[in-house]
Amino acid sequence: MKKILIIGAGRSTLSLINYMLQLAEARDWMLVVADKDLHLVTEKIAGNPRARALKMDVTDEISRVRAIAEADLVISMLPADMHVPVAIDCVALRKHLVTASYVSEGMQKLHERAVEADVILMNEVGVDPGIDHISAKKVIDDIVDKGGKMLIFESFTGGLPAPESDDNPWHYKFSWNPRNVVLAGSGGAVKFIQEGQYKYIPYHMVFRRTEFIDIEGYGRFEGYANRDSLRYRSVYGLHDIPTIYRGTLRRPGFCRAWDIFVKLGMTDDSYEMENAHKLTKRQFFNSFLAYHPTDSVELKLMHYMDIPQDQSDLLEKFSFLGLFDEEPLPLESVSKPTPARILQAILEEKWQMKPGDRDMIVMWHKFGYELDGQKKMCTSHMIFKGVDHRNTAMAHTVGIPVAIAARLILEGKITSRGVQIPITPEIYLPMLEELKQYGVHFVEKEIPYKNY
Amino acid sequence: MKKILIIGAGRSTLSLINYMLQLAEARDWMLVVADKDLHLVTEKIAGNPRARALKMDVTDEISRVRAIAEADLVISMLPADMHVPVAIDCVALRKHLVTASYVSEGMQKLHERAVEADVILMNEVGVDPGIDHISAKKVIDDIVDKGGKMLIFESFTGGLPAPESDDNPWHYKFSWNPRNVVLAGSGGAVKFIQEGQYKYIPYHMVFRRTEFIDIEGYGRFEGYANRDSLRYRSVYGLHDIPTIYRGTLRRPGFCRAWDIFVKLGMTDDSYEMENAHKLTKRQFFNSFLAYHPTDSVELKLMHYMDIPQDQSDLLEKFSFLGLFDEEPLPLESVSKPTPARILQAILEEKWQMKPGDRDMIVMWHKFGYELDGQKKMCTSHMIFKGVDHRNTAMAHTVGIPVAIAARLILEGKITSRGVQIPITPEIYLPMLEELKQYGVHFVEKEIPYKNY
Repeated sequence: MKKILIIGAGRSTLSLINYMLQLAEARDWMLVVADKDLHLVTEKIAGNPRARALKMDVTDEISRVRAIAEADLVISMLPADMHVPVAIDCVALRKHLVTASYVSEGMQKLHERAVEADVILMNEVGVDPGIDHISAKKVIDDIVDKGGKMLIFESFTGGLPAPESDDNPWHYKFSWNPRNVVLAGSGGAVKFIQEGQYKYIPYHMVFRRTEFIDIEGYGRFEGYANRDSLRYRSVYGLHDIPTIYRGTLRRPGFCRAWDIFVKLGMTDDSYEMENAHKLTKRQFFNSFLAYHPTDSVELKLMHYMDIPQDQSDLLEKFSFLGLFDEEPLPLESVSKPTPARILQAILEEKWQMKPGDRDMIVMWHKFGYELDGQKKMCTSHMIFKGVDHRNTAMAHTVGIPVAIAARLILEGKITSRGVQIPITPEIYLPMLEELKQYGVHFVEKEIPYKNY
Repeated sequence: MKKILIIGAGRSTLSLINYMLQLAEARDWMLVVADKDLHLVTEKIAGNPRARALKMDVTDEISRVRAIAEADLVISMLPADMHVPVAIDCVALRKHLVTASYVSEGMQKLHERAVEADVILMNEVGVDPGIDHISAKKVIDDIVDKGGKMLIFESFTGGLPAPESDDNPWHYKFSWNPRNVVLAGSGGAVKFIQEGQYKYIPYHMVFRRTEFIDIEGYGRFEGYANRDSLRYRSVYGLHDIPTIYRGTLRRPGFCRAWDIFVKLGMTDDSYEMENAHKLTKRQFFNSFLAYHPTDSVELKLMHYMDIPQDQSDLLEKFSFLGLFDEEPLPLESVSKPTPARILQAILEEKWQMKPGDRDMIVMWHKFGYELDGQKKMCTSHMIFKGVDHRNTAMAHTVGIPVAIAARLILEGKITSRGVQIPITPEIYLPMLEELKQYGVHFVEKEIPYKNY
């Protein structure tokens, strides 16, 4: 019998647990699902005899080491900054590890020791990062194998409401950690390279430097830049590529409105607002506008942010959130009222998925290359819809590739060791194949080459 | 004989050392001036028998403790973040300390222990902070003593070229630490209160939220907000004041142009530019502009930053810095080429004071209050000019109040103990009086009360 330890039973773990349990009997697997909140676990394993719930605080080293020591493979679904201690224990105890998060510096440092210990620390195997690597690297390898030279690589992913559930003026609902959505882009300047020129965008300009992407049958999206695209040159083996750009998709209009929050300083998480508990939503909004003795909040906003009086779609977005209303801020569960946390609380009331709501994952890559003296271009895209507000596309596209990677490792089909991400054919070919069975498939298209 | 230890012999210490040496013979003082760079010391003490040069690295605890142990009073002219270890030794060895820097958290924590040790740790006794406290607190105390209620307190200070040396399109030259000028405002959101409403301005909007201040005989200035004005409510005992605002003065036009640097991300100090050593100034500028295959840097800038084609005064400022020129970046002494450090290197070439150049300190306070049922308003301002590029107004207005405070402590005329700033009559009255003799005097004026 093989024992699989899953640490963390939050939002994205239902599909993962279901996948593993479906195979558990046949493969003689036993699942141990650990979380601080035992309720999150029991509702997901639903009494399955192949699964055991474990109440565990991952910061308690003794229970963590004990649980990892008993496992054959560990899957960490914890927040990104909590993987490293788990990874250290995995290397020490010679256990494989799978995570869906970006390889952190602390993780990368474990590479040599993991190779020595004959284990794999497989990361970035969710949806973004994850399915984007798998799908893009396959196309890039095909182009390079044919003798092509990569000139352009753009890649965008977004988690959005499916069209049938797209019923608010922001065309957005939370299918992912709301705090990460509010703080998106705030970690540092965007870095990329375009036609051989390095380009940098500070946080407060990111949501004004967007581009449109049209996907047949789904209409138009807008993409804003992710933080560090330069890193992906080495990840994808594209050291001299003149253009590389990664970004996030929203529906048109979202970024212009979100930019107002950023410009006003409403996404600042660095200080607490002294009088927050006495403020209405309107007063909260007003705190970021220049003082005027008589002008209304609406007028000050339009003046300060240069919004034409007749651009009602923008004001409607703020209006939908109640930001012009004299109603109390929803601060019940906000302990440190920073602007970002207050904004998050307001958004969580309004951007929640309703029962029956479906989300979707939209992924789109563009590849420009030169082959036999000719410039060519192709795109590859994928749209995947969730079932409802609990069985989301987000949870599915994070959980399923994690599960597949875990299975492939357990079955000895992935033999790489050390810190890895899914960018080699050994990994991406079987994963892409199996993802298709789960409805995650990519449409590849040749298009005419277009310069910038 | 009393021994005075001055640690740090940089820019602002010449006036301080001269003041102390002038009195040294009569009062039987001996000065020990310590610096890593002995040359800085010897050129300032110029062989005076009442002074001794000491080569010392303040981070070396043994030599630091030894030097402090031998002194009766210590003056730390080190960068702000290096005062706390010195202060700890001063408390341990029961020595008074004077600094011109803001009271840091680490400094504040030493209050009780300093009182116990019967020593004063006197801070914020330079020009800003320092002379601003001294001059403003006197007016505020007068108003409150008469039974007035403070409604408005605004305070602005700037270090600028004197009119006769104001010969570049920025109307600015460095008379202070260039790095601090480049990073000004970047530490976090501005916080203040206006007519009872809390207001917050994020860094990327600070230089667009300016106000004009006119000073007779010196023309117009513009002020941008300093980081945390709220803190000064408790410092000045103005707990319920509806409006308090502190800021920095520049000449009109500076902030609009500087705002472009901030908006473009050119003051970012958080990452190094990969290819910096290969870039020209023009390419450096271009790195922050949106890509366009044919548009010029000038056109891209005007388009991106919404600069009308005919606003030539703005473009002239960038042109003066050579930012449109294909000349190499001046990176000889830049080890970590972050955008901020590169920009600083460019500015240091162009904003240097020439031999004979004079700087000036401009300080301006506004007080609004209610007295006997009537609303009243007054201003208080001070302009102080330097002698030349070495004997600057900046060095003088930092060094002289530090020296006066040290003298008053040595003579037992300041009896407060613990962590202090110059806001009590015991301290500000004799200081204001003596500062007048050095040409630092304030012009107070009643003006008609004006609402916002």
